[in-house]
Amino acid sequence: MPRAAYFDNNGTTALHPKVLQAMLPYLSEQQGNATSRHMYGRSARNAIDQAREQVADAVGAHPSQVIFTSSGTEADNLAITGVANALGNGRIAVSCLEHPAVSRPAEALRWHGWILDRIASNRHGQVEKNALEAILQNKTDMVSVMLANNETGVIQDVAGLGELARKHKAYMHTDAVQALGKMDVDFASLNVHAMSLSSHKINGPQGAGALILDKRIDIQPLLYGGGQERGLRSGSENIAAIVGFGAACSLAVAEARQGRTELARLREHLEQGLRRLDAVIFGAEAERLPNTSFFAFAGIEGETLVMALDKQGFAVTSGSACSSDNTEPSHVLLAMGIQPDTARGAIRVSLGANNDIDEINAFLQALESELTRLRKLTAVAV
Amino acid sequence: MPRAAYFDNNGTTALHPKVLQAMLPYLSEQQGNATSRHMYGRSARNAIDQAREQVADAVGAHPSQVIFTSSGTEADNLAITGVANALGNGRIAVSCLEHPAVSRPAEALRWHGWILDRIASNRHGQVEKNALEAILQNKTDMVSVMLANNETGVIQDVAGLGELARKHKAYMHTDAVQALGKMDVDFASLNVHAMSLSSHKINGPQGAGALILDKRIDIQPLLYGGGQERGLRSGSENIAAIVGFGAACSLAVAEARQGRTELARLREHLEQGLRRLDAVIFGAEAERLPNTSFFAFAGIEGETLVMALDKQGFAVTSGSACSSDNTEPSHVLLAMGIQPDTARGAIRVSLGANNDIDEINAFLQALESELTRLRKLTAVAV
Repeated sequence: MPRAAYFDNNGTTALHPKVLQAMLPYLSEQQGNATSRHMYGRSARNAIDQAREQVADAVGAHPSQVIFTSSGTEADNLAITGVANALGNGRIAVSCLEHPAVSRPAEALRWHGWILDRIASNRHGQVEKNALEAILQNKTDMVSVMLANNETGVIQDVAGLGELARKHKAYMHTDAVQALGKMDVDFASLNVHAMSLSSHKINGPQGAGALILDKRIDIQPLLYGGGQERGLRSGSENIAAIVGFGAACSLAVAEARQGRTELARLREHLEQGLRRLDAVIFGAEAERLPNTSFFAFAGIEGETLVMALDKQGFAVTSGSACSSDNTEPSHVLLAMGIQPDTARGAIRVSLGANNDIDEINAFLQALESELTRLRKLTAVAV
Repeated sequence: MPRAAYFDNNGTTALHPKVLQAMLPYLSEQQGNATSRHMYGRSARNAIDQAREQVADAVGAHPSQVIFTSSGTEADNLAITGVANALGNGRIAVSCLEHPAVSRPAEALRWHGWILDRIASNRHGQVEKNALEAILQNKTDMVSVMLANNETGVIQDVAGLGELARKHKAYMHTDAVQALGKMDVDFASLNVHAMSLSSHKINGPQGAGALILDKRIDIQPLLYGGGQERGLRSGSENIAAIVGFGAACSLAVAEARQGRTELARLREHLEQGLRRLDAVIFGAEAERLPNTSFFAFAGIEGETLVMALDKQGFAVTSGSACSSDNTEPSHVLLAMGIQPDTARGAIRVSLGANNDIDEINAFLQALESELTRLRKLTAVAV
């Protein structure tokens, strides 16, 4: 069976062959536990140290600011819950565009006496400074706004929002999981205290993520045990995944930066075609990641279209890939003021380094014929 | 440089070549996010479902009882903190032999109003029923006793202790991370409500673990987000690691069971040699895992011996591999009533499927010459 064209790179990416090459020694030879002092343990420790430098270098951070976790979700939870637990009670503001890995732990804080504010989005999917400023009139301890949205690809002015948060003495966290590799990400110039990263969104392996943390921030671990990662994340280090994450970070700076122009060109070609088919493209007027297109067609249900395109050999998603068990309309689109009926039509194409223009053309052709078919069915049903 | 004989299999194990073969397709081909509904996502979901069955089969559990985590440490933390958070306040009893992945989260519960009791060990490294029974005279909500100790290899009567805990209406958890693969582990007959497992201790990859959980137990997640693992462990699944964990579990039942006799034979050969060199072998009178030997020589510091043996090409550890940054004497030995001076001499050999009798003989020879050398130095120093 031929493999389908893969248009779900915001969901997960293929492992880069060079990343796999970097990982293989750590999967095929005897390795030590990185806390052991014998030669195998020291070799594992050295590999982790090198990866820590690679991750730090990719985002303009110092290696000592890198806390390795098992995923971006864990990094987000560590940032939100770890800082909150160190503070005791308080008030947190998160944007209404956040991934559940940020919004859910923020909601859970309410059970422990925290107050949760939601920062509104404008209709382009952007968090405006005045929306945050209004919320900061109440004494706020922590703010979290993602750098780029996983569904729309819309990029937030995190540096500006972070400046505002700092002025009001609030800690600033950003989920940069979708941004990494698709735009320049510089920890220092983002004005944040903490930033979450994930390996498998940048052609690295699943099983590795990182929280980049200003070391002056007091934080409590989520996982207690052997005291790895300066006591902030216990558990034997996943050496192969960490090595792969490091290698992917280096590539994200070297290769992916060049690839962005090509991604933007492919996406523009796609969206020209989508507009010809009368698609609504969400967030199109905002600055977006170069690879993401989130769109809908009037009267067509997104989930139905995803299934039809899957049969035609095109892997796309409806709403966010990380919660597609859920058939509720996207919370991101609702936050942008999109009508639920329109939001239910949303499908997402997220391109990656492996896509080419022939796949886009074939996709547009399949889309057109499916739209014709589905509209006929709908017309009959009415 | 020739690789040293690897005697730290309780620290971490080499990936089994068959496990790597099972994982490679998930590292070298395009994979989907397991929550996505397109063909790549469904294929990932199927792979996880199969691994869930393999893990469940290996320990006599039902697949629906398996919650995949990133490590044994995370499984332990989820069991302790997750159940505690669902209960609110209460009282927990953990043995004084536990790995920090159990004892540290139990200690952290005290900051949230919990009372922590420590169940004593006898001098053989065993938790006796009467020690637990005395503690259970106070209303206790949760008990945690490991199935086999990582340092001594001593096996606990978890079934008997679990029966006692149940009689007193306490939840029973066991950390079976070191037991899996080295002895038969059957969830149902252990009388526990929750059991932690780890992949990289059984020749599976790092980055996967599981909590086996009686579904009637109310538990709160540590990681919130996309709602993976029935909402109990969010984050994109680490597909390759989970697939590898499943494959390693199948092998742990098929191949490792046969290998235990050979491990016991190698260990006996080692310990005969150790006794000739006047070693004290800790827990030798208790039932132990077949691969573990924890011992000391009067007047010789363990850390010094580990370093000397490392130079000679033998990878052993002092105390537990998971906290060898720490030069304090082993808490396990202190709990067994061993004098700190003797405990500081402890070194651990933990054998695996890759070891053979020639390595043991070479090790005994190197050990004898190092002991002679170190004793001369000590004599000079005195």
